[in-house]
Amino acid sequence: MEKTKPLILVTNDDGMFAPGIKNLIKVAMQFGEVVVVAPNSPQSAKGHAVTLEEPIRIHKVALFDNVEAYECSGTPVDCVKLAKYLVLKDRTIDLCVSGINHGSNASVNIIYSGTMSAAMEASIEGVPSIGFSLLNYSFDADFSASAKIAAAIIKNALKNGIRDAHLLNVNIPDLPIQDIKGIKVCRQAEGRWEEDFQEGEDPRGQKYYWLTGRFIAEDAAEGTDIHALENGYVAVVPSGHDLTIHKAVESNTSYEELTI
Amino acid sequence: MEKTKPLILVTNDDGMFAPGIKNLIKVAMQFGEVVVVAPNSPQSAKGHAVTLEEPIRIHKVALFDNVEAYECSGTPVDCVKLAKYLVLKDRTIDLCVSGINHGSNASVNIIYSGTMSAAMEASIEGVPSIGFSLLNYSFDADFSASAKIAAAIIKNALKNGIRDAHLLNVNIPDLPIQDIKGIKVCRQAEGRWEEDFQEGEDPRGQKYYWLTGRFIAEDAAEGTDIHALENGYVAVVPSGHDLTIHKAVESNTSYEELTI
Repeated sequence: MEKTKPLILVTNDDGMFAPGIKNLIKVAMQFGEVVVVAPNSPQSAKGHAVTLEEPIRIHKVALFDNVEAYECSGTPVDCVKLAKYLVLKDRTIDLCVSGINHGSNASVNIIYSGTMSAAMEASIEGVPSIGFSLLNYSFDADFSASAKIAAAIIKNALKNGIRDAHLLNVNIPDLPIQDIKGIKVCRQAEGRWEEDFQEGEDPRGQKYYWLTGRFIAEDAAEGTDIHALENGYVAVVPSGHDLTIHKAVESNTSYEELTI
Repeated sequence: MEKTKPLILVTNDDGMFAPGIKNLIKVAMQFGEVVVVAPNSPQSAKGHAVTLEEPIRIHKVALFDNVEAYECSGTPVDCVKLAKYLVLKDRTIDLCVSGINHGSNASVNIIYSGTMSAAMEASIEGVPSIGFSLLNYSFDADFSASAKIAAAIIKNALKNGIRDAHLLNVNIPDLPIQDIKGIKVCRQAEGRWEEDFQEGEDPRGQKYYWLTGRFIAEDAAEGTDIHALENGYVAVVPSGHDLTIHKAVESNTSYEELTI
């Protein structure tokens, strides 16, 4: 049987009920057969967590018209593993798209993000993958510009691929489409979170701490994703999963000389 | 007041009660003042997860002689954030060491590992950091060789630093010290997990799935951590958190030409 339509896996980290994934499903349906496997609860900042200590549940849901969809009790990375090894076991996934995330995953946030970790997991499994994020955290964010941009990028990825990389980290400024200046292919900016723990007392009088913090871009030079976004461009960072700093292999030969 | 001893933060992902961290604390105490902030339950494969949706608890514990130690309800990355922003708020951490992990974190496992994510979090915060892992998953693993190797590496890191990199991923073969051939500074091998979901039924007759799988090294060429380990060497991979594939920025200019 000739394969007519690409098979596209859609997932996210904000959960099945987030407007972002609904918008991404609609876009993906223009280009292929869509299967959705997504978390049944918010899984933001779950990074590359995998559920090992407990079982996972997965159920088919009738949430989106004409789309095969499954809700999963696990993390975003669990969703991708379930999609590949259970739901779509004998089929080749042509593309995985994750998002559209409510909030930025630029700079070092790629590492904390469940949305980007899902995309990365697919890419480790050999599936070309794209994570999309809109720079607006609210439930009621306007995804109309993001949807158009995601459509253009998915179309190009299906045609031209993701050359020399494993996945794309796509961040979209929170602007109407006419104010977005274009797309820049970038490198990941350096950044970090400066944290503050809010101290509180629970109803039993026991202390707790709740994480709050603010992101600090430590590098917004031209060529970075942060620079592109600050200047009204969509930032596309071709990414991978090799964390080696290759030049540092030479620089650290003192470790090879140690007596053990 | 002159600073006499380096301040060393110790954490892990196997939890406070694992023999691996006990061994690492003993080693670290040879070189500086040690403060421990570690999870109060096993947090393997939690990747770079951060706890946002619920509060975190942290309590001082009298678990190790002459060592200030805290157990934390969160993930390994939460532990590092709590150490830096709450426990050691006004102090400079000279080195973070994580582990000794029960089981390999070589190749792509650096991404799934809570132990390595804790080390990476410290390095994002500007603290030089080392994750140690022994290639033996069992509780009763023999850490005597690992302890000697960790001591040599920590001593060198305090003296010579981690040049051009942010953290070291150190994996140690499960061999007696006399059979370990030396230390190799390496790159991360390519690899992936081939998963299998074990299907079961809970006491209510509802289906569940439990993740099982086996690691497949797709690249064990000379110069990789997997190659070093297979040949009886300790593998040290100088690592970072920039996921950009820099040569792919040029290769993907077709994305900049899209009409949006």
